[in-house]
Amino acid sequence: MTLNILFAAKPERWATYETPLRDALADAGIEAELALTLPPEEVDYIVYAPNSDLQDFRPYTRAKAVLNLWAGVEAVTGNETLTIPLARMVDPGLTRGMVEWVTGHVMRYHLGIDIDIERRDAEWEPRTPPLASERSVVILGLGALGAACAEMLTSIGFNVTGWSRSPKTVEGVTCLHGDDGLKEALSRAEIAVLLLPDTPATQNTLNVETIALMPEGARIINPGRGPLIDDEALLAALDSGQIAHATLDVFRVEPLPSDDPYWTDPKVTVTPHLAAETRPVSAARVIVENIRRGEAGEPFINLVDRDLGY
Amino acid sequence: MTLNILFAAKPERWATYETPLRDALADAGIEAELALTLPPEEVDYIVYAPNSDLQDFRPYTRAKAVLNLWAGVEAVTGNETLTIPLARMVDPGLTRGMVEWVTGHVMRYHLGIDIDIERRDAEWEPRTPPLASERSVVILGLGALGAACAEMLTSIGFNVTGWSRSPKTVEGVTCLHGDDGLKEALSRAEIAVLLLPDTPATQNTLNVETIALMPEGARIINPGRGPLIDDEALLAALDSGQIAHATLDVFRVEPLPSDDPYWTDPKVTVTPHLAAETRPVSAARVIVENIRRGEAGEPFINLVDRDLGY
Repeated sequence: MTLNILFAAKPERWATYETPLRDALADAGIEAELALTLPPEEVDYIVYAPNSDLQDFRPYTRAKAVLNLWAGVEAVTGNETLTIPLARMVDPGLTRGMVEWVTGHVMRYHLGIDIDIERRDAEWEPRTPPLASERSVVILGLGALGAACAEMLTSIGFNVTGWSRSPKTVEGVTCLHGDDGLKEALSRAEIAVLLLPDTPATQNTLNVETIALMPEGARIINPGRGPLIDDEALLAALDSGQIAHATLDVFRVEPLPSDDPYWTDPKVTVTPHLAAETRPVSAARVIVENIRRGEAGEPFINLVDRDLGY
Repeated sequence: MTLNILFAAKPERWATYETPLRDALADAGIEAELALTLPPEEVDYIVYAPNSDLQDFRPYTRAKAVLNLWAGVEAVTGNETLTIPLARMVDPGLTRGMVEWVTGHVMRYHLGIDIDIERRDAEWEPRTPPLASERSVVILGLGALGAACAEMLTSIGFNVTGWSRSPKTVEGVTCLHGDDGLKEALSRAEIAVLLLPDTPATQNTLNVETIALMPEGARIINPGRGPLIDDEALLAALDSGQIAHATLDVFRVEPLPSDDPYWTDPKVTVTPHLAAETRPVSAARVIVENIRRGEAGEPFINLVDRDLGY
């Protein structure tokens, strides 16, 4: 039997994904019609990007699952026409890229690399950075990405604390949870990394009150989601010195508008949403694995709980 | 029996090392007179920094070993009055610090972090850095420091090649050696890290000819020794674009003179010899371990082969 798989993403993504998806389908021995347009009632699976034109899922009466190309699902979980299973993308290539980006920026803050890069005089000023074992890094969010980052930073030698809403366990990492755990985690965060999903419960996780709990001169790295931070509170904390520096990869509005104060704040590094790039070859394999599971009657992986929002 | 241990380093180092050394001696159960001055003929061990006033070892007729506080021994191996065993410092704290510094600067180059730090306009320009697995990093020198850096970069996912004069093996690392091996290693060095000792054979390892073997736009990180690089050749290669950027922590003359062209070259980051800091607590344990071995008749660790020069 030939499956009908609809590719519902911006047309320019087709060029990136067509070959990897066809290769992964062939490798899995799945015969499929993979196309940008198909009669809705004949579609078996929908490969999906939330910014595609497909916003009304009701005509797709036969479809077994929506397989998201993005890690983020906040733009689709509220879609009431979507009643079939939704899987988010957990791409091993994306995870590796995130781990690398987070590791790079944590090391940069840890070593004070900006001091050397930005030096304009010819002053030889030796300093001894602490060892990683003397540095406390806190990861907010212990999903696939947060846990992978926590493990890497632990293996480099950092003193890593992780926090999540519900209890989790990551080897070598002090894991805290709940509201009291968040306060304790932030109180020891010399460097805080935000990898929470964007849900109503996580919005403004960093706000006036929680930023005040952090050690003076703390640094913030946000490769997670823009709404995790109350932007006005962060700008004020940077101004007062409570937060020494922030590196932000995600924003409430993207691209970040050219008049946004983050661009010109000397204590902020803006990166253009590059920490979490899905890599087509590895992502295609994940999509096809879920199609294989659907056809074999096995449970889908990376299913979204739409009540929790992730 | 009480041992007489001479601390022969600049007096200001005494404040840093006295307590860690006394603590380590006490932990090892060694009774010792540890002092800045002792009658030479009564000294059993010399804790040594090559820049100390002690340059004539002949009066120390009873001494069993010179225990160097520095990893570098090039300023003492040529001293013909030194005929007893010389141990170099292999400090686990120094090694950790070196691994962290190298990891930080490799990640910085890998991710192109300078682009984001130095951005002065408000241009949102997405880019996808390659994954570490697609990035070739070459470590020249596979001693204690080079091997530790190679292992860490491998565990992050980089494609790591190591080179040493004589054959060595490091798990997960492609190890090359000899003159032909150097050519092959450099030809694949998108990022090269220099961790060779300073010996007559390693001087100007990077010169006009060897730099030309590297891929165009390669990056160089030197936390090893200043004389490993022909400075004029590097400046010319930066100028031509053959080398995209260099991060230099060590120099032929330190502190780097204020009129040195490295300070003003926009393609060079100068760091003030901070990659290889000896950490007194862990270093004192290494010194005392060698004293324990000397008294127990066991072989010293980290002995210098003065013919090789390291």
